[in-house]
Amino acid sequence: MFGTDTKGVYAIAPTPFLPDGAVDYASIDTMCDFYLDRGVDGLTILGILGEAPKLTPEESVAIVQRVLARFTKPVVVGVSAPGFAAMKALSGASMDAGAAGVMITPPAAMRTDDQIAGYYAQSVAQIGADVPFVLQDHPLVTTVQMSPGVIRRIVEENPSCVMLKHEDWPGLDKISTLRGWQAKGEMRPISILCGNGGLFLDFEMERGADGAMTGYAFPDMLVDLVKRHQAGDNEGMHALFDAHLPFLRYEHQSGIGLAVRKYVLMRRGAIAHANLRVPGPKMNDTTKAEVDGLLARLAKHDPRAAF
Amino acid sequence: MFGTDTKGVYAIAPTPFLPDGAVDYASIDTMCDFYLDRGVDGLTILGILGEAPKLTPEESVAIVQRVLARFTKPVVVGVSAPGFAAMKALSGASMDAGAAGVMITPPAAMRTDDQIAGYYAQSVAQIGADVPFVLQDHPLVTTVQMSPGVIRRIVEENPSCVMLKHEDWPGLDKISTLRGWQAKGEMRPISILCGNGGLFLDFEMERGADGAMTGYAFPDMLVDLVKRHQAGDNEGMHALFDAHLPFLRYEHQSGIGLAVRKYVLMRRGAIAHANLRVPGPKMNDTTKAEVDGLLARLAKHDPRAAF
Amino acid sequence: MFGTDTKGVYAIAPTPFLPDGAVDYASIDTMCDFYLDRGVDGLTILGILGEAPKLTPEESVAIVQRVLARFTKPVVVGVSAPGFAAMKALSGASMDAGAAGVMITPPAAMRTDDQIAGYYAQSVAQIGADVPFVLQDHPLVTTVQMSPGVIRRIVEENPSCVMLKHEDWPGLDKISTLRGWQAKGEMRPISILCGNGGLFLDFEMERGADGAMTGYAFPDMLVDLVKRHQAGDNEGMHALFDAHLPFLRYEHQSGIGLAVRKYVLMRRGAIAHANLRVPGPKMNDTTKAEVDGLLARLAKHDPRAAF
Amino acid sequence: MFGTDTKGVYAIAPTPFLPDGAVDYASIDTMCDFYLDRGVDGLTILGILGEAPKLTPEESVAIVQRVLARFTKPVVVGVSAPGFAAMKALSGASMDAGAAGVMITPPAAMRTDDQIAGYYAQSVAQIGADVPFVLQDHPLVTTVQMSPGVIRRIVEENPSCVMLKHEDWPGLDKISTLRGWQAKGEMRPISILCGNGGLFLDFEMERGADGAMTGYAFPDMLVDLVKRHQAGDNEGMHALFDAHLPFLRYEHQSGIGLAVRKYVLMRRGAIAHANLRVPGPKMNDTTKAEVDGLLARLAKHDPRAAF
Repeated sequence: MFGTDTKGVYAIAPTPFLPDGAVDYASIDTMCDFYLDRGVDGLTILGILGEAPKLTPEESVAIVQRVLARFTKPVVVGVSAPGFAAMKALSGASMDAGAAGVMITPPAAMRTDDQIAGYYAQSVAQIGADVPFVLQDHPLVTTVQMSPGVIRRIVEENPSCVMLKHEDWPGLDKISTLRGWQAKGEMRPISILCGNGGLFLDFEMERGADGAMTGYAFPDMLVDLVKRHQAGDNEGMHALFDAHLPFLRYEHQSGIGLAVRKYVLMRRGAIAHANLRVPGPKMNDTTKAEVDGLLARLAKHDPRAAF
Repeated sequence: MFGTDTKGVYAIAPTPFLPDGAVDYASIDTMCDFYLDRGVDGLTILGILGEAPKLTPEESVAIVQRVLARFTKPVVVGVSAPGFAAMKALSGASMDAGAAGVMITPPAAMRTDDQIAGYYAQSVAQIGADVPFVLQDHPLVTTVQMSPGVIRRIVEENPSCVMLKHEDWPGLDKISTLRGWQAKGEMRPISILCGNGGLFLDFEMERGADGAMTGYAFPDMLVDLVKRHQAGDNEGMHALFDAHLPFLRYEHQSGIGLAVRKYVLMRRGAIAHANLRVPGPKMNDTTKAEVDGLLARLAKHDPRAAF
Repeated sequence: MFGTDTKGVYAIAPTPFLPDGAVDYASIDTMCDFYLDRGVDGLTILGILGEAPKLTPEESVAIVQRVLARFTKPVVVGVSAPGFAAMKALSGASMDAGAAGVMITPPAAMRTDDQIAGYYAQSVAQIGADVPFVLQDHPLVTTVQMSPGVIRRIVEENPSCVMLKHEDWPGLDKISTLRGWQAKGEMRPISILCGNGGLFLDFEMERGADGAMTGYAFPDMLVDLVKRHQAGDNEGMHALFDAHLPFLRYEHQSGIGLAVRKYVLMRRGAIAHANLRVPGPKMNDTTKAEVDGLLARLAKHDPRAAF
Repeated sequence: MFGTDTKGVYAIAPTPFLPDGAVDYASIDTMCDFYLDRGVDGLTILGILGEAPKLTPEESVAIVQRVLARFTKPVVVGVSAPGFAAMKALSGASMDAGAAGVMITPPAAMRTDDQIAGYYAQSVAQIGADVPFVLQDHPLVTTVQMSPGVIRRIVEENPSCVMLKHEDWPGLDKISTLRGWQAKGEMRPISILCGNGGLFLDFEMERGADGAMTGYAFPDMLVDLVKRHQAGDNEGMHALFDAHLPFLRYEHQSGIGLAVRKYVLMRRGAIAHANLRVPGPKMNDTTKAEVDGLLARLAKHDPRAAF
């Protein structure tokens, strides 16, 4: 299910909160059902989108357990932490609870190739070489820049690396380079799922990506998009993508974008409340009007946006 | 013409080069004509897009003079430099040649409010308080983060600041905050033109921006968009914007985006050659095919993309 | 004891580990006794020096409790964390256990004055306005740059801010500016203890600092230095400082410096083992020989370095 | 004279200015004589210390020519610039005027090993493979972090790289690693001169450095220190170093340190005026008193500090 040949859509799930800031466990259940109903192939929790740094370790483990008790497809858990003790603890608890694997993002201080590769080697030594992991490449947020060569090095040095969460920007040629190496046998094949809000998912698929791992509030669109591409319907894929792009771009904004995303997920019935845990941005009336306007225009092309 | 009440579109112009890397002065003339024909209200040269750091000071001055000899509307010259001697020299030469004003971007080392405001005070002391200047707020490239408060402070402390080139991301609420202060008389009115590739120009207009200052290869679309907004035709504005967004997003990529932009400007007849001065990214065949595909799809909505 | 009028030396304590990486609780006791015997006025634990990010939350709380059960003078606990949930939990547990206050460092993403001041306001809202806190200003490590004005703003906006841990570099004029404001009644008085390894402690005292808060392996020298300054013996202060400077400078190195520090504390009998928790730098033979040579030279001036 | 086997001291020279900010060409002559009289083996001009970014290109070339007309030993010219056109122009003018080589620092945006190595390859392509160059490794200022491996790669890929200006901090093990590779024939030998204000020059010599390239205002002390080390008198080397360390540390402060340095060079008769070109820090009365006190204490050990 989850491995180097994974294809499709892994939704990045938010963490639902009650209005008072407590974790909304009931909404975790409805959210899991929502994602399953929309046809995603897996779920990734406790990423940046999941407001992971705002959680206590106990809450993180409880959320992992609640999700795994409900979601019937593979679940990946973000275990990035400022120190290895926390990473190891969360990774162990997640695998014990039935997670398919974990996702690791390098800390901002990593600069040289040796530092980055060394960090992944140390991480694997901590969590265990038997735990499949996703390598997250997200320089816009982490400020860590990985050349294609250092990604290959991490993949080659760590057999438990099964997937790249690709969200470099711009990053199309990076996918081509990695796939080119694989085609020539110069790099072990891995799954590549794309994040970055999906802003280039159309071309990322054409460059050789296996699918998406992002939190766009219409995961069903992502599923359709990947299917159209797999069916060879590139025109259909672009048409669908282009219809969503105005809103997708809006939702992709740093900070406020997560508030927008939760608002739409709430409107779609996935979660009960849209609020973030403090401190976090809030949608003001202007933002809300802009989102409603975008959804109304989108609904002319895709009825799923009408609610 | 150019001042605190400027509205419309200032195109950010590239610097055309011959295939051997020399400045292509003939293309400067055709490029000026192209922009005038497309109805822009002004031109900004020697910005990041203009590959300014790759030029010698002599080339910079020669380019300024060539543009000013041809272009019949206001021209703003980017004079950001690692030191004030170079800034002062280029600013003086530009104003002597007839520039309407200059644009200043803070260097990456600026962090605190005092540092940023101090840098602008020093810049004005160097170039002269009689030279109108544009304050560029572009954190994604400069890493300098300006709060609305520090922008207001710069505006209040420097009467020669006439315009904000707004390209924070996300930045919609920043426009609203500044316009709110102006409405309440808590800040001197200035012109706000938006950059950032135009990625949020639709909503930026609705938030109170006066227009665009960006290098999108279809400045005529930007002109139409601003006019539709000025005419109160918001639905028409969004429809036009949405049609261009798939390509606009593609062109907005850091690095390779400039190569794409020059390629389209070449295809549209503005300049003779698409190449950047080394070192700079080059479009490969895959990129070219993607651009051609995007333009073909765009041409169904906007015939200007058919060539 | 601990408040806006605190003077003297607060030692930054390391976290002792057993060779297998477990927390060495027995060494916590001997370490507390060591610091008390050397005459320090307080202790700061779980700072950067204390390898805090490598600890699990449970370990952090257990260490706090162990220290507070043994150390008979004020203890400050570093509670900086990537999220407020963790900060609030550790702060609450520390105050419950009898800590005198907490220390808060802003995360690296903070840039503008508003962001920094806002972060401290949010922190106080989380931990409670009744918890005295130390404002840590350490740009070399955090990359957060605070102007004197933003420090004053934080002090004025948060009555529970009782102390500045000053470790900007260079930073002498910053102390003078803050003390100047206080003298003119333009800023509420606070205690200023200096860190940065003590590299400028001689002049920091002359500029108006109240003492030191740093982890130098000879806290007794710091105590003497502050006393000489308080007694008006500036020549004696400089002579003592200058004798220690060659080693102090060596110990101040980022990364390896902590290994050196623990090595000397072990040699002085404060802790049983010198090792850091992985991942962390290790002293090689060359480093060890350099340290031993430095101590031998220092011992000619200060017999405390002979062991 | 200047090459992979260079040993000794290359002084980093400041740029002297008249009180009105104009270049003080007469002081360039006296400064050259000063450095020759103090026994340095070479000079490096137009580095960060030389306020290079504040100069116009014409001034830079004029300074190079003036120095080369006077100074009878090898001169290295810093040619780092935001773009290659400026680098190429200054490098060409410098070599034409008789410079021994140039020094190149990578721009702050360089992160991955490939980016850094690629930058040096491009630089060599611009300035010519026949121009000997110094690789400057100064992360504290540039934020560019070079692993030992990427330094070796640059050395191996570019035969015209003859020297490393080592100023990483901490950086002792980096010297050992490079020298270890050379001893095993795994890296071409190059000269290593150390900067970073000289703060670790004592141990850098013991680790295998060939000397110093830094701007400390007592270059004659650096010359003596290197000679003592070459003569095998390590105790004498440390004693000399330790005596200077209190002042050396003070002068090493970022920003204000250059003002201090120029002040001492003026007091020693090297240059006529101590002022920096604006914008730049100025010594206030407190700073001046601290410097005078430090020099008075130093003069008890080294009469060269009495003036």
